[in-house]
Amino acid sequence: MHFTSENRLDDGVLEREFTLGEIPGILWTPRSASAPTPLILIGLPPLGLRTVYARVAARARYYATEYGFAAATVELPGSGERPRWDAAEQARADLRRVMAAGEPVTAEIVDALILPLVDRAVPEWRATLDALLALPEIGGPVGYEGGVISIGVRLAAVEPRIAAANLFAGTFVPGAIAEEARRVTVPLQVLLQWDDEGNDRQASLDLFDALGSEEKTLHANMGGHAGVPHFELDAGARFFARHLK
Amino acid sequence: MHFTSENRLDDGVLEREFTLGEIPGILWTPRSASAPTPLILIGLPPLGLRTVYARVAARARYYATEYGFAAATVELPGSGERPRWDAAEQARADLRRVMAAGEPVTAEIVDALILPLVDRAVPEWRATLDALLALPEIGGPVGYEGGVISIGVRLAAVEPRIAAANLFAGTFVPGAIAEEARRVTVPLQVLLQWDDEGNDRQASLDLFDALGSEEKTLHANMGGHAGVPHFELDAGARFFARHLK
Repeated sequence: MHFTSENRLDDGVLEREFTLGEIPGILWTPRSASAPTPLILIGLPPLGLRTVYARVAARARYYATEYGFAAATVELPGSGERPRWDAAEQARADLRRVMAAGEPVTAEIVDALILPLVDRAVPEWRATLDALLALPEIGGPVGYEGGVISIGVRLAAVEPRIAAANLFAGTFVPGAIAEEARRVTVPLQVLLQWDDEGNDRQASLDLFDALGSEEKTLHANMGGHAGVPHFELDAGARFFARHLK
Repeated sequence: MHFTSENRLDDGVLEREFTLGEIPGILWTPRSASAPTPLILIGLPPLGLRTVYARVAARARYYATEYGFAAATVELPGSGERPRWDAAEQARADLRRVMAAGEPVTAEIVDALILPLVDRAVPEWRATLDALLALPEIGGPVGYEGGVISIGVRLAAVEPRIAAANLFAGTFVPGAIAEEARRVTVPLQVLLQWDDEGNDRQASLDLFDALGSEEKTLHANMGGHAGVPHFELDAGARFFARHLK
């Protein structure tokens, strides 16, 4: 992990860009940490870190200033400046084509779109976690939030250092991931936008039902994909505060 | 409204029992209120105030000490020491009979059980609100929480002084109430126990969908009717704190 920039923000939060191999990311740490801090991994949507930077940085700074958590994010494989691969481009083109034609999004398209992304992103998150937890100022426990829900489900199922996850049921979920959901046991909060234009409500409720965790809470709010209410930021932070002790 | 007892509790909260005509109730007010306080009306389940006193008083004292809210509750018609009426006793007997036989709970039984209770309880809540808001230490705005969800839906639909409601989707809902739900416009939080043994999950999701409010959030948690997690108390208080300014 190489830090490539360092910026002390006006709220005292230290923002550092880094690369881990070819993967760019950002780490935010609170002004003064008397002890190693818990860490929130912020999963991104596949839009590129530069596109969503303002929103993600605001979340990270809120966690740091209000709760004393560190937070980090990394660019997804195939997003932002990272190289595309042919199968992913093909899957995206297929998705655009059926949606433009008003045709149903088949399980084949969802699998082709999501599964290779999960297969690449989860090991990258685990390597990122190795590097972050090696820093003296980061202690854990570790929470995961946001992003492509299938990545969060797989990561929570296979990575024992994830102690709690706040997921967003806002993207297509392959059947294989719904099966993996049964193996998740950590406390969960799941956000659902009731009228998400790109997401099937019943499929999201079924995924929530399938998740194996004994403590899981669904927060369903009105509106479309981009309409998650601002108060859910603090609700998520308080969820993490209960579990990242 | 006649106060029949007054007790300063060890957290400084003043607990006063009262009667309003034949209706017994309790009012809790914070230790020191520099200005008239917001008010939470706590709806009861039909189990009798004495049976649920400990849990309700704990909620009221939390609101008073942590958020400076007053809180009040009244005994439901036909609960506790209040007189029964024949039709309600008959409806309860019918419900017990079909549930013991493993037969479906028909719409007729639900209507007979719930609608007369709503017809009686809602005017009583409105009269209670008149009396409470006449006290100099109670200023409003007013929130409603808990209890039989059909009472909360009707009260929120018809009583303009209710500014926000935190409802519990934990009891049968008549079709007529699901229609009235469309007329509710205040901010809502709705609790749902995912595996509520006495309540149909899909019916609760349909009721949530039907509620007319632009801001409504569903909090679904694992477990049965009595298993609402403790952290939902603070989540409810924070919901009220956002809206009862």
